[in-house]
Amino acid sequence: MIRVGIIGASGYTGGELARILLGHPGVEITCVSSRTYAGQPLGHIFPNLLGLAGPRGTELVCEGLAPVEVAERSDVIFTAAPHGVAMEIARSVMGKSAGVGAGGAGVKLIDLGADFRFRDAGVYEAWYKRKHDAPALLVEAVYGLPELHRESIRGARIVGNPGCYPTSAILALAPLMRTGFVDPSSIIIDSMSGVSGAGRSPSQSYHFPECNENARPYGIPGHRHTPEIEQELSLLRGGDIRVSFSPHLVPITRGILTTVYANLAPVQAAGGGISIDSLIQLYRDFYRGERFVRILDGGRLPQTKAVWGSNFCDIGLRLDERVGRVVIMAAIDNLVKGAAGQAVQNMNIMFGIDEGCGLDRPPLFP
Amino acid sequence: MIRVGIIGASGYTGGELARILLGHPGVEITCVSSRTYAGQPLGHIFPNLLGLAGPRGTELVCEGLAPVEVAERSDVIFTAAPHGVAMEIARSVMGKSAGVGAGGAGVKLIDLGADFRFRDAGVYEAWYKRKHDAPALLVEAVYGLPELHRESIRGARIVGNPGCYPTSAILALAPLMRTGFVDPSSIIIDSMSGVSGAGRSPSQSYHFPECNENARPYGIPGHRHTPEIEQELSLLRGGDIRVSFSPHLVPITRGILTTVYANLAPVQAAGGGISIDSLIQLYRDFYRGERFVRILDGGRLPQTKAVWGSNFCDIGLRLDERVGRVVIMAAIDNLVKGAAGQAVQNMNIMFGIDEGCGLDRPPLFP
Amino acid sequence: MIRVGIIGASGYTGGELARILLGHPGVEITCVSSRTYAGQPLGHIFPNLLGLAGPRGTELVCEGLAPVEVAERSDVIFTAAPHGVAMEIARSVMGKSAGVGAGGAGVKLIDLGADFRFRDAGVYEAWYKRKHDAPALLVEAVYGLPELHRESIRGARIVGNPGCYPTSAILALAPLMRTGFVDPSSIIIDSMSGVSGAGRSPSQSYHFPECNENARPYGIPGHRHTPEIEQELSLLRGGDIRVSFSPHLVPITRGILTTVYANLAPVQAAGGGISIDSLIQLYRDFYRGERFVRILDGGRLPQTKAVWGSNFCDIGLRLDERVGRVVIMAAIDNLVKGAAGQAVQNMNIMFGIDEGCGLDRPPLFP
Amino acid sequence: MIRVGIIGASGYTGGELARILLGHPGVEITCVSSRTYAGQPLGHIFPNLLGLAGPRGTELVCEGLAPVEVAERSDVIFTAAPHGVAMEIARSVMGKSAGVGAGGAGVKLIDLGADFRFRDAGVYEAWYKRKHDAPALLVEAVYGLPELHRESIRGARIVGNPGCYPTSAILALAPLMRTGFVDPSSIIIDSMSGVSGAGRSPSQSYHFPECNENARPYGIPGHRHTPEIEQELSLLRGGDIRVSFSPHLVPITRGILTTVYANLAPVQAAGGGISIDSLIQLYRDFYRGERFVRILDGGRLPQTKAVWGSNFCDIGLRLDERVGRVVIMAAIDNLVKGAAGQAVQNMNIMFGIDEGCGLDRPPLFP
Repeated sequence: MIRVGIIGASGYTGGELARILLGHPGVEITCVSSRTYAGQPLGHIFPNLLGLAGPRGTELVCEGLAPVEVAERSDVIFTAAPHGVAMEIARSVMGKSAGVGAGGAGVKLIDLGADFRFRDAGVYEAWYKRKHDAPALLVEAVYGLPELHRESIRGARIVGNPGCYPTSAILALAPLMRTGFVDPSSIIIDSMSGVSGAGRSPSQSYHFPECNENARPYGIPGHRHTPEIEQELSLLRGGDIRVSFSPHLVPITRGILTTVYANLAPVQAAGGGISIDSLIQLYRDFYRGERFVRILDGGRLPQTKAVWGSNFCDIGLRLDERVGRVVIMAAIDNLVKGAAGQAVQNMNIMFGIDEGCGLDRPPLFP
Repeated sequence: MIRVGIIGASGYTGGELARILLGHPGVEITCVSSRTYAGQPLGHIFPNLLGLAGPRGTELVCEGLAPVEVAERSDVIFTAAPHGVAMEIARSVMGKSAGVGAGGAGVKLIDLGADFRFRDAGVYEAWYKRKHDAPALLVEAVYGLPELHRESIRGARIVGNPGCYPTSAILALAPLMRTGFVDPSSIIIDSMSGVSGAGRSPSQSYHFPECNENARPYGIPGHRHTPEIEQELSLLRGGDIRVSFSPHLVPITRGILTTVYANLAPVQAAGGGISIDSLIQLYRDFYRGERFVRILDGGRLPQTKAVWGSNFCDIGLRLDERVGRVVIMAAIDNLVKGAAGQAVQNMNIMFGIDEGCGLDRPPLFP
Repeated sequence: MIRVGIIGASGYTGGELARILLGHPGVEITCVSSRTYAGQPLGHIFPNLLGLAGPRGTELVCEGLAPVEVAERSDVIFTAAPHGVAMEIARSVMGKSAGVGAGGAGVKLIDLGADFRFRDAGVYEAWYKRKHDAPALLVEAVYGLPELHRESIRGARIVGNPGCYPTSAILALAPLMRTGFVDPSSIIIDSMSGVSGAGRSPSQSYHFPECNENARPYGIPGHRHTPEIEQELSLLRGGDIRVSFSPHLVPITRGILTTVYANLAPVQAAGGGISIDSLIQLYRDFYRGERFVRILDGGRLPQTKAVWGSNFCDIGLRLDERVGRVVIMAAIDNLVKGAAGQAVQNMNIMFGIDEGCGLDRPPLFP
Repeated sequence: MIRVGIIGASGYTGGELARILLGHPGVEITCVSSRTYAGQPLGHIFPNLLGLAGPRGTELVCEGLAPVEVAERSDVIFTAAPHGVAMEIARSVMGKSAGVGAGGAGVKLIDLGADFRFRDAGVYEAWYKRKHDAPALLVEAVYGLPELHRESIRGARIVGNPGCYPTSAILALAPLMRTGFVDPSSIIIDSMSGVSGAGRSPSQSYHFPECNENARPYGIPGHRHTPEIEQELSLLRGGDIRVSFSPHLVPITRGILTTVYANLAPVQAAGGGISIDSLIQLYRDFYRGERFVRILDGGRLPQTKAVWGSNFCDIGLRLDERVGRVVIMAAIDNLVKGAAGQAVQNMNIMFGIDEGCGLDRPPLFP
């Protein structure tokens, strides 16, 4: 049994981690740390978890533990904390330098925030407006998108779990990035997200009467998920790629639907080019063997409801020859493939167990 | 032109008042008072009102005025403030004693809160857990349900505008209360409300992801709207009536749907009694000439969507002879007939103008 | 491995059965029969199931099979068909008389419709307005509410899986029925349901723009789930019980929230009676060991969101001493505990395997 | 009083027309024609309109009239019929040739469908896959977007009322089209619509459980609103413009949110160019005096909820200098500014009355 500690379990990603891990046969949740909720059963914070027992048969209760205490009881720690906090936790349990842990031999860390997602601390500092306090740990961290970095994840001590929007956008674009089919300077990413993506803290923007029956853009331009997308596309392409990224809020609880536009490279647009069938084949080949990516055939388009509660990313493709553009659409559950599910997928890889363990139930519909 | 002042315009009922009054041809909004938002255009607080000009052609801007300053500019003041605050305002602009105003000759006050709804200060104090500071003003105040108290409203200086749930429940039951058809001790009122009824202050209970795709009861038993319903039913019946009242929250923005159960009195249940047709006729007769009450015929049932954005109360009736009960269902828009619309209806009555002025547009559908 | 056949897999309960059974480690779905969709992969009918393989590693494809063909491949058949159809299927695979099967030795049948829910064919015929064609099979059928009839289910050949509303109402009332605390003639059951309860066939009543932002009653009085509730309450009480049952439609996809009212029996109402703590204890005792019933403590009330996607029934209790009534509230997912989940629970019992198998994942939240 | 006839009043745009016109002080609805609903009061088709009387004080009842009969009673006819039907109606009441009416002197026609939106019958035929049967009438028809074609509308006999998506997209782009700021070949239009845009006919795609909690693209590429957008942008620009247009369905009843992307022309992108302030000023100047277009200042973005039930189009602007793109966002109510409201605005212009008559009430919020 993998001993798991969760730090910061009062938000939606923390609760989703608990939900998934309680159904994971190879895991024992040894501690859930939350200063705010210390002493409270998890079922009082998340009504779905009421009365549910962990593997030892007792209900999980939050504890106000120091990170090193969590590390002592854990093989892996999930941090679901605000950015800036996770890097402090990492330093205290893993040491300030790469590869040297203070909190015990070999504890691993999967951070669901932004602290370990960037290869370049400068990018983090420019977009998050604060210094990175653990640059040495950042260097060894791996960006936890298994479809791109599985081998590195396998050996990683620290995984920076991808953001929700980037997961959908990068998976939608990855196969194309390694080809010359599209002009990489033309990429536009238009996304809609459910409100759980904004977290559990109430505010007027997410107050039910203001969100319900409403569709609206926000954070345009300059959303912090932009550099994450650019980092991974640039790595795939081998060059500096900049994209437009526009998030929108729609009145659903869970789900991201991302629509990506890219101009066909001149040779393609001239008609000597790619067909929709070969485009779909390109994606099928790229994701062959990936159990959490479903490439839809020509007649189908993705929808958030088809992946609800699951770790799937559904991808649909269209070729608009009239205007010379490819349109790629991807749907995920922002709390699963966009957060907690992907984190568990990463854990499974890091511990060498079946990658789908705990993630194998079909989505719910309707 | 009636000069209108609004105190407390940052909540949903205040915003709805402004919306309705901006479309009222006989009204000039002379001031909107809000300490929190002083200096801000109303359109920055309520995005629907952006750029809309009042009758003088300029956009309304909140001011941090004292109640007496509001009174000096107004023929009528609407107070959309927390309970306890309205009675203080009333005292400062109308004097502590009945009939003697400090803020000018004849300013009238319509309170959208609970401070002036009860005939008995003791009932207020028992349910709202605080002393009533203006008992003399309470004595002269009229409960502003026009279908029951139109004549008193006409001459009133202070109107206590009914609560949203009570409006639906009292209108659903009033015609029966004056008959002997049902056993008044058997009344059960089961209501569902949209989330705007809980106000505009964000909290986890009304956070979109927690409300969406959710149906739940709350405040059972003991919701503060209970004594208001009991007061009016008792007055109609001429005796002390106690009811069960159970509110529920459903994921809609606006709307209340109330389902009322009452046992047929023994003589009726024995079969010598009332038919559904005569029941409907009883209601049609009771509400004859009431332009905001629609009695549905036998084949139809009310729904909140049919009254959206309007001052209507739709009422449907069923007779369940198998179990000897009447079931009455009523739908209103909680912000209109349940709050701001009814307040404007009261104002129209108090100033002797057409009762439907400003309230004459059909509901929106779908 | 239990070999399972599903007849009628194109509706929501059929799809939910497939979803749950695909995650059930002790089951092999051997055939899915649907005349309308013969030849289509299940993933084309239900987008969540796209690409999901059954235990043999191949995607499930609908076949247009005769019932006896399904029976030959199955240890148990689930029928998710309109009422009237299931009894024909039962006759063809099990013979017309009790205990004699034509389709093979020992195939079992779990019907998710109404054909096998009633002990008295006359009740079925009165409420469903048609003759019952398999009265002999009806006699041997067991009403599949495990919390009440587990022992009979264990040995049953035919199970009539309960309706969604009745599941919530009966579980809410069962503990009280065996006591003298309440007056059984006073029971009023007020329910709200998500729209999936109305099935997958589109109609104007369930068209998104007409359901969204709408709350409305329907089928009052006379909903067909009434006699099912009355049958079980009468059995528990040992006498003929009649109830008021009022369903409402609210804009959620899944979920039923039922609020039940019952007058305290005179001795209780007189104050010598029951306390809220002893009431809660009564429920805890009654449901001790039941893993799918959660009795909430005094401070909490049930909500549909807390049981989303799960087989739980959450029950909350309130005592309203002021009016002498008990209020019991219950929440279920109408497609799981109200349909497919309970059917799988019944199957587990019938085959002697762990009752929670395939049903052990926590609800989703938010 | 303008005498108005409505043909095809059973859909959402027909119902919305009736709702708006019932509140229009200068209009008398003389007939509502619908073969399907002949004999039914309008209030039985649209529950919001129940019991509402037209100007003659009687409730409106649908009649199964021939177009010429409607024309005899009307100064203006609104057609809310499927494409192909409106052109037949136009021919029967206005003659086959331009300027010669059969149904009486001077009846005007405002078609809410696509039959009279295109200057080039060939474009209509290519996108709608059918022959245009009234090309002569098409020639004289005016595209009814008042902000662009007010003068032509004033003198028009036939107005082709714009589609909902095109209204939002064209208003979002019009000011830029007359400048050299952006590269017109780079325009991408990404829209989300509420479900009422798909009409009132039920289908599985718009069944509540399939739409709720779902976000999904559809009709990409090739949606029929594309050529309408291209026609108007090309006219503004003076050249052939082709755009990408991608509609999405989100779970709201009313509302369109359109996000438009355009690359800055090289000189602008080089930094010698436009600022966000001058961009906003460009839009303010372009729409000066337009009462239904609100240009939001730099800190605000449009949202569908801010225009709910109103004829407003709210427009917000962003300059993304990092990638050299302009992002323009526009919000409308698809049934009002996107259909019936704009049609009434056109009628007001055609009859020389105040352009906002009947359209002057603020949007509803929340």
